[in-house]
Amino acid sequence: MTAQDQNPTAPGRLYGLGIGPGDPELITLKALRLLQSVPVLAYPAPEEGESLARQIVAPHLPGSQEEIAIRMPMVVSRFPAQEVYDWAAGALGEHLAAGRDVAVLCEGDPFFYGSFMYLFGRMAERFAVEVVPGVSSLTACAATLGAPLAARNDVLAILPAPLDEALLTARLQEADAAAIIKVGRHFGKIRRLLQDLGLADNARYIEHATMGNQKILPLDAVTAEAVPYFSMILMHKRGEAWS
Amino acid sequence: MTAQDQNPTAPGRLYGLGIGPGDPELITLKALRLLQSVPVLAYPAPEEGESLARQIVAPHLPGSQEEIAIRMPMVVSRFPAQEVYDWAAGALGEHLAAGRDVAVLCEGDPFFYGSFMYLFGRMAERFAVEVVPGVSSLTACAATLGAPLAARNDVLAILPAPLDEALLTARLQEADAAAIIKVGRHFGKIRRLLQDLGLADNARYIEHATMGNQKILPLDAVTAEAVPYFSMILMHKRGEAWS
Repeated sequence: MTAQDQNPTAPGRLYGLGIGPGDPELITLKALRLLQSVPVLAYPAPEEGESLARQIVAPHLPGSQEEIAIRMPMVVSRFPAQEVYDWAAGALGEHLAAGRDVAVLCEGDPFFYGSFMYLFGRMAERFAVEVVPGVSSLTACAATLGAPLAARNDVLAILPAPLDEALLTARLQEADAAAIIKVGRHFGKIRRLLQDLGLADNARYIEHATMGNQKILPLDAVTAEAVPYFSMILMHKRGEAWS
Repeated sequence: MTAQDQNPTAPGRLYGLGIGPGDPELITLKALRLLQSVPVLAYPAPEEGESLARQIVAPHLPGSQEEIAIRMPMVVSRFPAQEVYDWAAGALGEHLAAGRDVAVLCEGDPFFYGSFMYLFGRMAERFAVEVVPGVSSLTACAATLGAPLAARNDVLAILPAPLDEALLTARLQEADAAAIIKVGRHFGKIRRLLQDLGLADNARYIEHATMGNQKILPLDAVTAEAVPYFSMILMHKRGEAWS
């Protein structure tokens, strides 16, 4: 038995912090307060190089916190990289067990297609976890495009672009409005589908919404090979949701 | 010709401010800055009584601004009350034309089923309009319930509860996950549908998420007649999105 077992510290709390879509001013007061007060920050990062989540909040950091980069291989076939989450759960768990609060930075919102859920699933039974919702890419794209997502009794479908064509076609036919996310290398397929369905004129493209490198382009002006992961297509069958 | 026509003022800017789901700390830094700096605030309000949007931001108001309540009859059959929006567009337009910036407070996010779009549709061609995205009820409910909305290539359907049963059934059958919004007096129908589809065990109910009167209840503990408009049911077919 260690000294700690005999005189246990109250465990720390794990926060999943939605930090918003990219503009550092689109963080909430609550996320900012926690971001600046916890002793330990963690964030997803590529195998090499800088973390986008950390870059977003960089202007707000006091610079005195311990930081843990959760480095994720960016290879599609290995996603989700269970062993990385296992490792991260262990590393963060040590801080929590020692009584230190930990905040995990999450681009956009933690629970809108976010990877924080894989830590949540591993840790929520053992530790107190609080999720702080953030401005999601979904509403950030709509705001920036000047395109309301949906109104009244519209069915809005959130469709990941990697899905196969038959399924995407069926869902696009049935919904009143759609947000096609994770477009990236699937752009060519999506544009063709929208054209075939006669919906291309009702669709709008945006990449890196609210970030310094934000771009809005007509669908037919997009270079399919250059579309980044952080891109979205919004479609409303009435053209404008308010009509 | 008036003096103003001869020496025109630069027109003001209209802001649609997402103020978040209810907790005053879930407002963004950007919305807070604009909220406190514009000379004119407008907000939706019931025909009589207080505006929920104004209540949410009340702790942040300097108290020196002109305020315009956009009072909306709460009668379903008259929605959307076009004449109220026409009136509001005129009233706000006068301030803008006189060079005063105006911020319209929007609960949650302005473009996620929000009524701000009806002002946007009337005013965006005549005036500069900027929409500031906010934390939507969608992600606030998920965070509070500890229930991630969707993962990887899940199709997430946003389904307004007033839709008819056949349509809701079809959309629930096809989607991997769903958020049923605007539940209110449709709760009984929705619960029965989820039970018939064998999805009730995968569904979670919440009302007034992040507000002082927030409630989370098992589906079968909800009193159907007492369900408020600000309520949501989240469903994921895998039980937990991360699994």
